Amino acid sequence: MAPDEPAMTRFPVPDYEDLPADLRERIDEETERAGFTPNVFLAYAYHPAQFRAFFAYYDALIEDTDLEREEVEMIVVAVSGVNHCYYCNVAHGALVRIYGDDPELADQLVANYRTAEISERHRRMLDLAVKLTESMEEVEERDFERLRDVGYSEKAIWDIGSVTAFFNLSNRMAHLADMRPNGEFHTMGR
Amino acid sequence: MAPDEPAMTRFPVPDYEDLPADLRERIDEETERAGFTPNVFLAYAYHPAQFRAFFAYYDALIEDTDLEREEVEMIVVAVSGVNHCYYCNVAHGALVRIYGDDPELADQLVANYRTAEISERHRRMLDLAVKLTESMEEVEERDFERLRDVGYSEKAIWDIGSVTAFFNLSNRMAHLADMRPNGEFHTMGR
Amino acid sequence: MAPDEPAMTRFPVPDYEDLPADLRERIDEETERAGFTPNVFLAYAYHPAQFRAFFAYYDALIEDTDLEREEVEMIVVAVSGVNHCYYCNVAHGALVRIYGDDPELADQLVANYRTAEISERHRRMLDLAVKLTESMEEVEERDFERLRDVGYSEKAIWDIGSVTAFFNLSNRMAHLADMRPNGEFHTMGR
Amino acid sequence: MAPDEPAMTRFPVPDYEDLPADLRERIDEETERAGFTPNVFLAYAYHPAQFRAFFAYYDALIEDTDLEREEVEMIVVAVSGVNHCYYCNVAHGALVRIYGDDPELADQLVANYRTAEISERHRRMLDLAVKLTESMEEVEERDFERLRDVGYSEKAIWDIGSVTAFFNLSNRMAHLADMRPNGEFHTMGR
Amino acid sequence: MAPDEPAMTRFPVPDYEDLPADLRERIDEETERAGFTPNVFLAYAYHPAQFRAFFAYYDALIEDTDLEREEVEMIVVAVSGVNHCYYCNVAHGALVRIYGDDPELADQLVANYRTAEISERHRRMLDLAVKLTESMEEVEERDFERLRDVGYSEKAIWDIGSVTAFFNLSNRMAHLADMRPNGEFHTMGR
Amino acid sequence: MAPDEPAMTRFPVPDYEDLPADLRERIDEETERAGFTPNVFLAYAYHPAQFRAFFAYYDALIEDTDLEREEVEMIVVAVSGVNHCYYCNVAHGALVRIYGDDPELADQLVANYRTAEISERHRRMLDLAVKLTESMEEVEERDFERLRDVGYSEKAIWDIGSVTAFFNLSNRMAHLADMRPNGEFHTMGR
Repeated sequence: MAPDEPAMTRFPVPDYEDLPADLRERIDEETERAGFTPNVFLAYAYHPAQFRAFFAYYDALIEDTDLEREEVEMIVVAVSGVNHCYYCNVAHGALVRIYGDDPELADQLVANYRTAEISERHRRMLDLAVKLTESMEEVEERDFERLRDVGYSEKAIWDIGSVTAFFNLSNRMAHLADMRPNGEFHTMGR
Repeated sequence: MAPDEPAMTRFPVPDYEDLPADLRERIDEETERAGFTPNVFLAYAYHPAQFRAFFAYYDALIEDTDLEREEVEMIVVAVSGVNHCYYCNVAHGALVRIYGDDPELADQLVANYRTAEISERHRRMLDLAVKLTESMEEVEERDFERLRDVGYSEKAIWDIGSVTAFFNLSNRMAHLADMRPNGEFHTMGR
Repeated sequence: MAPDEPAMTRFPVPDYEDLPADLRERIDEETERAGFTPNVFLAYAYHPAQFRAFFAYYDALIEDTDLEREEVEMIVVAVSGVNHCYYCNVAHGALVRIYGDDPELADQLVANYRTAEISERHRRMLDLAVKLTESMEEVEERDFERLRDVGYSEKAIWDIGSVTAFFNLSNRMAHLADMRPNGEFHTMGR
Repeated sequence: MAPDEPAMTRFPVPDYEDLPADLRERIDEETERAGFTPNVFLAYAYHPAQFRAFFAYYDALIEDTDLEREEVEMIVVAVSGVNHCYYCNVAHGALVRIYGDDPELADQLVANYRTAEISERHRRMLDLAVKLTESMEEVEERDFERLRDVGYSEKAIWDIGSVTAFFNLSNRMAHLADMRPNGEFHTMGR
Repeated sequence: MAPDEPAMTRFPVPDYEDLPADLRERIDEETERAGFTPNVFLAYAYHPAQFRAFFAYYDALIEDTDLEREEVEMIVVAVSGVNHCYYCNVAHGALVRIYGDDPELADQLVANYRTAEISERHRRMLDLAVKLTESMEEVEERDFERLRDVGYSEKAIWDIGSVTAFFNLSNRMAHLADMRPNGEFHTMGR
Repeated sequence: MAPDEPAMTRFPVPDYEDLPADLRERIDEETERAGFTPNVFLAYAYHPAQFRAFFAYYDALIEDTDLEREEVEMIVVAVSGVNHCYYCNVAHGALVRIYGDDPELADQLVANYRTAEISERHRRMLDLAVKLTESMEEVEERDFERLRDVGYSEKAIWDIGSVTAFFNLSNRMAHLADMRPNGEFHTMGR
């Protein structure tokens, strides 16, 4: 995207100066970490109360988890791929490349996680994530067994489900608002 | 459900006594308000950090919104209906009956929101909610126009989308964990 | 529904007085049995010849069958749930509660039969009913085997299929005509 | 099919001699009319009570209707085509060729009713039939208006729906039992 | 179709006299072989460069293959059936009847290949063809194993895939252009 | 992919030295043009007769067309996106970036063509391409009108359809064989 394009097109992006102090603080931290301000922070600031809850949830997902960070991001991209979410494919695609230390994995997961060069263990992790996304009503005990059989703990299975569920929220908000991924994400980690 | 049935069947329900104080406090409040402890609070307590974020998000949805509470619950039940979520159909079905002051509306929304006796304005609200749930990738500008034309503000449209997105998370967690609605919910408001 | 609401909204409901004697007789019997006139009888009276055939078929399904009445009603509600049929969900939901002697079973079956607290035998019965409803072209010999393995007779399997097939007719007529369930059905057996 | 092949493969075909007199009488009439015994009569005789109700319903559909017989059969084949029903495609395909006086219409309707060389009026009739078959929950007032606009009476619309609904029953029974169309049907009217 | 109906309705059919010599030569050969000019040749002549490539591909499929010609045509009709392609159902239906020496096989494959009277070997061949057509992203190693287990060579599996893939092209062009099958195809081989 | 990974994983990749001279010549040309050998050429060489026809068709699509090259590649990527084809997403994604002179367009089209920053004219072009891919049986006259209204010629519409149809073939062959995109494609034009 061009530097002057908005963070989302369907709602007005609030001015940084007008935001509550805690939102500005979080945005500053993210900007310092990434070297630019990921647009999801500017977009979600449209609704400060939801901003706080949304990122608190995201923090809980990556800070208190039995999954590796690489696993979290693999789930995010596989889910965003089947949900056709442009923002999440691109922004979390960059994170998959970085945390997975693999320049091609994101493109594989966006297209079809079944074509990805991943372990059987990770394949089963993504089987649950995609099934819970596409046909949740069919998830049953045997889906849990397939994960236990490759060593995922009970808590890890909850976490696989939680990341999947949260990005079924995120994908819908990103698409609703037409959030646009920062240009930087397209090339990070390639 | 029988009084001694667990709040969910696929993960162990934590003991109230072992929970962090802030979770116990929230559970106490909910129990006092409802006259019983809605099982979603016991189930989500499996993961305290997610418990906090989940209910903070829910609070943000119902406390800082341009929608009527009745509208929020109508969206929840229409979304849960198409997602085939037993817990949310029943628990929020009770809330629709109460906030909508209509003993039959929940059964209509669970079955097929198109058969519900609702206003054109609410019909369009649910059209967006169900489309964002079932085929999010097709949501476009014209879906926004249909809502503006019946008087929904920009913020209200964000809120319709947010409630929809959040229950696409909730439905998946409730189904994953096989949360069981309290017996009370089946009859409240009928 | 309010007492003065019509039995269906898309076709005129005939006057009882104008109906042929045999239809009046059947309606009288049903009214006496239930304590009110289930709206499907008033609605189907729009077409007397079809009324006769429709209820003759229904009688054959419940009078000459290898299934328990509870099983018949479980199939009806599971099928009506996936077909999103408001009238049948509610009217036969009441019958499931009564014949199954379970106040929560109907809500489980309407939402997702996979979440219902039922035996493995009944689970397989509903697997066939839902598959024959949603993707009939894939029903094959192995679906029969799964039922024989839990003790269903050949005739019982025909009957599972017949109840399913008949409610694929009923659901469509109820939705086409927008039949409205009597208010009594919402609370019977809860 | 070879002359000695059974009328259906998944249930035993009863012996004509063992059937109740009224079934034998109906089968005799059909055999005389067609010059052979259509297999649906032999198959349905497996369950005499359902045989009576099934054919009483069918008789009501074609004897007390505001539709032309050609229209009834067009609906049957379009519905059976989308339901992938081999028996009904072939048996009623023959009837479409005969009543429609068109040797190619059945193959068009089986493949895709949108490619059939039919009037706008009939196109709309089949639009409702296919929509009520594939996504009944979306049928609404505007679908009725499209039919009224091309002159269909209220009763004719009920009848379009009834034929559609009945063949959603028939297709499922024919597929369940694996009914096999008589060889004669493949070539009649070509 | 009537003798004066066009080969397709959505694009103008070129005059034979105006065609390049090599197209006229191919058309002459096909006309001599069949006794009439199959409409796909007249329709594809709209774009001579594509005509050459299309029929070169088709020739490669039937001349350099590990499949029997009957197998090729079975795949074509099963694929065209699920793709709802009128032209291919009818034109290749005739070829299935002739090469398979079976007057009913085409109607079975058009309706639902699972109802066809074919060997287990051919059933698995069509399982891959239909899966690659309807949900290609799910084709995996185990689909290959099922074919190897019944004796298909590696090259034969490629060929099953190639015929399937090519008719996913052909079906789309035939439907786009609304190609109309010659009247002769409807009755050949019955 | 690592330099020593094969061009496809489900069939053996032939040795260049063993290929017929005309295939080697074509491969040499492509290698010189791109600076590396795109894997589709090595993979398709498994079947030389199909190699010739496949690339002859592709050449016809890009050499004798009323579409801009950028438009051809946009169609390819939008179609490959909905078909979940990893090879085509990545290889033609590179071509979209180059011919469209836009480093982000490919990621937009892979995710959801409705989110792409393209003209109304191109939007309608892709509407047809995606509809012909996902639900070809519903393509009708009005889809043509929408394209004529923005200035596409009759021949251009045929060409939009042809590119779409051809990549419904290509996507299936690439997925069947599990063709792997060359590493170079992931970064070209970014």
